[in-house]
Amino acid sequence: MRLSQFHLRTEKETPADAEIVSHKLMLKAGMVRKLAAGLYTWSPLGLRVLRKVEAVVREEMNRAGAVEMAMPSVQPKELWEETGRWQKFGPQLLKIRDRKEQDYCFTPTAEEAVTDFARNELASYKQLPVNFYQVTTKFRDEIRPRFGVMRAREFVMKDAYSFHVSDEDLQREYRNMYDTYARIFTRLGLRFRAVFADTGAIGGSASHEFHVLADSGEDALAFSEGSDYAANVELAEAVSPGERPAAAETLRKVDTPVQKTCEDVAALLGIALQRTVKSVALMGVDAEGGPQFVLALVRGDHVVNEIKLAKLPGLADYRLATEAEILEHLGAEPGFLGPLNARRKIRVVADRSVAAMADFVVGANENGFHLAGVNWGRDLPEPDETADIRNVVAGDPSPDGKGVLGLARGIEVGHVFALGRRYSEAMQCTVLDENGKAVHPAMGCYGIGVSRIVAAAIEQNHDDAGVVWPEPMAPWRAAVCIINPKGNADVSAAAESLYRELNDAGIETVLDDRGLRPGPMFADIELIGIPHRIVVSERGLAAGTFEYRARSASESENLDRESLLSRLRGE
Amino acid sequence: MRLSQFHLRTEKETPADAEIVSHKLMLKAGMVRKLAAGLYTWSPLGLRVLRKVEAVVREEMNRAGAVEMAMPSVQPKELWEETGRWQKFGPQLLKIRDRKEQDYCFTPTAEEAVTDFARNELASYKQLPVNFYQVTTKFRDEIRPRFGVMRAREFVMKDAYSFHVSDEDLQREYRNMYDTYARIFTRLGLRFRAVFADTGAIGGSASHEFHVLADSGEDALAFSEGSDYAANVELAEAVSPGERPAAAETLRKVDTPVQKTCEDVAALLGIALQRTVKSVALMGVDAEGGPQFVLALVRGDHVVNEIKLAKLPGLADYRLATEAEILEHLGAEPGFLGPLNARRKIRVVADRSVAAMADFVVGANENGFHLAGVNWGRDLPEPDETADIRNVVAGDPSPDGKGVLGLARGIEVGHVFALGRRYSEAMQCTVLDENGKAVHPAMGCYGIGVSRIVAAAIEQNHDDAGVVWPEPMAPWRAAVCIINPKGNADVSAAAESLYRELNDAGIETVLDDRGLRPGPMFADIELIGIPHRIVVSERGLAAGTFEYRARSASESENLDRESLLSRLRGE
Repeated sequence: MRLSQFHLRTEKETPADAEIVSHKLMLKAGMVRKLAAGLYTWSPLGLRVLRKVEAVVREEMNRAGAVEMAMPSVQPKELWEETGRWQKFGPQLLKIRDRKEQDYCFTPTAEEAVTDFARNELASYKQLPVNFYQVTTKFRDEIRPRFGVMRAREFVMKDAYSFHVSDEDLQREYRNMYDTYARIFTRLGLRFRAVFADTGAIGGSASHEFHVLADSGEDALAFSEGSDYAANVELAEAVSPGERPAAAETLRKVDTPVQKTCEDVAALLGIALQRTVKSVALMGVDAEGGPQFVLALVRGDHVVNEIKLAKLPGLADYRLATEAEILEHLGAEPGFLGPLNARRKIRVVADRSVAAMADFVVGANENGFHLAGVNWGRDLPEPDETADIRNVVAGDPSPDGKGVLGLARGIEVGHVFALGRRYSEAMQCTVLDENGKAVHPAMGCYGIGVSRIVAAAIEQNHDDAGVVWPEPMAPWRAAVCIINPKGNADVSAAAESLYRELNDAGIETVLDDRGLRPGPMFADIELIGIPHRIVVSERGLAAGTFEYRARSASESENLDRESLLSRLRGE
Repeated sequence: MRLSQFHLRTEKETPADAEIVSHKLMLKAGMVRKLAAGLYTWSPLGLRVLRKVEAVVREEMNRAGAVEMAMPSVQPKELWEETGRWQKFGPQLLKIRDRKEQDYCFTPTAEEAVTDFARNELASYKQLPVNFYQVTTKFRDEIRPRFGVMRAREFVMKDAYSFHVSDEDLQREYRNMYDTYARIFTRLGLRFRAVFADTGAIGGSASHEFHVLADSGEDALAFSEGSDYAANVELAEAVSPGERPAAAETLRKVDTPVQKTCEDVAALLGIALQRTVKSVALMGVDAEGGPQFVLALVRGDHVVNEIKLAKLPGLADYRLATEAEILEHLGAEPGFLGPLNARRKIRVVADRSVAAMADFVVGANENGFHLAGVNWGRDLPEPDETADIRNVVAGDPSPDGKGVLGLARGIEVGHVFALGRRYSEAMQCTVLDENGKAVHPAMGCYGIGVSRIVAAAIEQNHDDAGVVWPEPMAPWRAAVCIINPKGNADVSAAAESLYRELNDAGIETVLDDRGLRPGPMFADIELIGIPHRIVVSERGLAAGTFEYRARSASESENLDRESLLSRLRGE
């Protein structure tokens, strides 16, 4: 491709209304243009990148044995009513009424449509397993579409749905898809993590999310630096620390007239924050169903994890205690609370790390005072319960025993679910098994946000000059830039010849023959993130060299033709 | 691909509700399945064919210099209001209201969206010409969706839009696209015709339709058997015949008591229908705007063309004359009308072929009588006007002077329009020209019904056993069928080896390893239209041959490996 014959339109200014770097750079590079809220036109440049992603996704899905098909965008209400999702999906489901006053929706996902297809197509266990996939446009009517194609309303998704006679076979395919997703993101050149996930609205029994790692990611992830363990921070287990040390201090009451937070108390006492304990007062229900006052204890430097807390008996629907309830049970105001000297019977839940502490500091249940040198079993009874009720932090041991946890932020770009029989049962999809008995097939579903990957890749790979594409996603791998194409016929001819040679060698190359001055030309090539830039100039030609620069490098090198070719071939 | 790992599901019975052969065969072969009225899921088999068409379309559009991009499916009302098409497009436009009560539509075509893109992207004549195209899902809310994907509501269309500083450049690109379309349909292996067309709802100044020829086609086409001239029958010119012969008969009145049609009169008189003249009584307006009685004359075997008639002065809004008006002007009832002996002044419009007749037969303007041996200039004045007012018939000379016309039926699969400035003006899309002046670019638009091509190809290419794909559209070019795959390991191994060898040689081949009996296996391979079938059997293996059969042939041949390979390579 010659840039003079390609429609490239970059912007000098960074668009004011874009909030995140990928959106800014996609607009600046002219990859997308907004048509309306959450609706984007993909320019020729943007589409080239999108197609690279699609191609890798297709190749790996095919290699994994999945078969591509395509379901309609517009789907009838009746289908969605069979599973109750016409209502349950909520306002994100874009509803459409046709000229005959029939109701339809623009498909946000296709469990219903594929199960309808399957119940008509599949009759026998002999046709299973099968994994149908499609790469099509989906729509979610986001209330606040933002961040460009990162959270657009219309987007390109690869969705796959597998059907199995047994749960074991579903597990096999789930693992197959998990591995396939890992291959896809690896081939795309992205740093990613597969994490355990909550199954959310689609439901099912097992689920992993695939996240592209980027500082701007919406999700906080914990991952082992010594294994492939990864999970959302909210779900990652904070494992038990070692043995509790022996008590070394005596219990003493300390004046903390205005110190209500662990940080302030630690500062006043001149001790590490890790020596303090935070007391959070909650109301749950007791074994008889009556109200129960609960004091949840975490280390001063830790944060209570509400999801973990809610999994404890009687706390499924807990709430924070009111100030009146706190006064009634503990006799003090928030800021001075602790597990000692309660006025009434309370339930004490200690985080694992708190249960392992000695000589710690808690509120004294008396306004203006804390207790220091507190020790379990000596100054107060062992906690009623010890449990994992906090978020993990960087440096925690990995739950799989291998290495310690790091924290990262991620952008979810893929999701695999073992759905089970929820859809096949609701929609009466059956096949005959080996004994001639009609059974509901077990299903899996596997999604990849194809257009989202483009934005996520930029969030992960950019610098001040623009996008720094991983090679497999770049619109072209190399750009041959001509300095003053009309000024010297030899320069143009040499550039043409190199351009052809590189393409013939399988290195997808664009020729920048637009005749721009070097500054704006190089700025464009850097902005759009081409991994390899080669400049053909009069001076270089005289010296028999080309000026080569990798997008990620800060300096250019002068290389002869042969060295250049081996460099680009990765030799 | 191995069929055992591909989802192929054919039906034994021909579906009862399908009206046309392509719909029947697509359902029977399991290429598509209906989700709702006019909405079809493409099965893995159907999608393979659709993708072949898409690939050829993309390759040729790219080769022609067009650049691919992609616009959203859902487009805002405001855009469509700028051109007035929100209303004008009518109920085929599927309207959508989102959760914020904003109005959108599902795009049936994208002139508005692309012009909006262009007015933001294009600033200077230096960026022109440019031709943007996309291959995306479109929607037309047909009142009576039928014929499967032939007239579905949701369909895949390739639409392209070009922008030019001058009309001349638009004409150049129009020709470029015309040639590109011809290459696309040629490469797909289809018999087609490009025909002059009315510009219809999209508007514009020049237009050609591309039709796949098939007996079941909706459109009647006239084409030269000696050149590439082709047109819709309604638009094809009926050229002037030769000189009028000299009069040979005398004028005489003949008794035709009940003979009111040319056919009946010719039969009674024992003459050729071509010797009679049909008189059609119309009401138009005269030069002063008053009512004018017009007698349009065409040969007895010809049909009046209403479009041509309406192009004559005063006939733009003509209507048929009432019986009272006929009696008043001619004094006789319909069935006995003619240009002689009118009671009042009438306007006589003779078709070119009528003006060239001698010794002809017309009604006598007297109930129960006709006149025979009538001659212009002798028995009545020369006609007031001579014009082309009839449909062409097979055997007419081609308007380009090369050969004679044949008639055929066609299915429209492509359309090229020179739009002009209608959209760029309505939407204030301008670029600066060489003099720095803002001008509206001239536009062309070019559509191909990608999913429709699949059905049209089947209408053109099928037999009693099923589809007979042109090779470039076939899901696979060849099928290697194993007889009794589990019975003889040598047979399976030989089939595997041939299957790999063919694929390695670039001949896309499927292995039928499903273990079906020969009858059902061959029936499937014929039904789905694979061009080349190779059977590997114990007997053939012993003889060192494969049983080869072209889909279009009626007999099989036994070929050794080498002959088979050259045959498949087309050597």
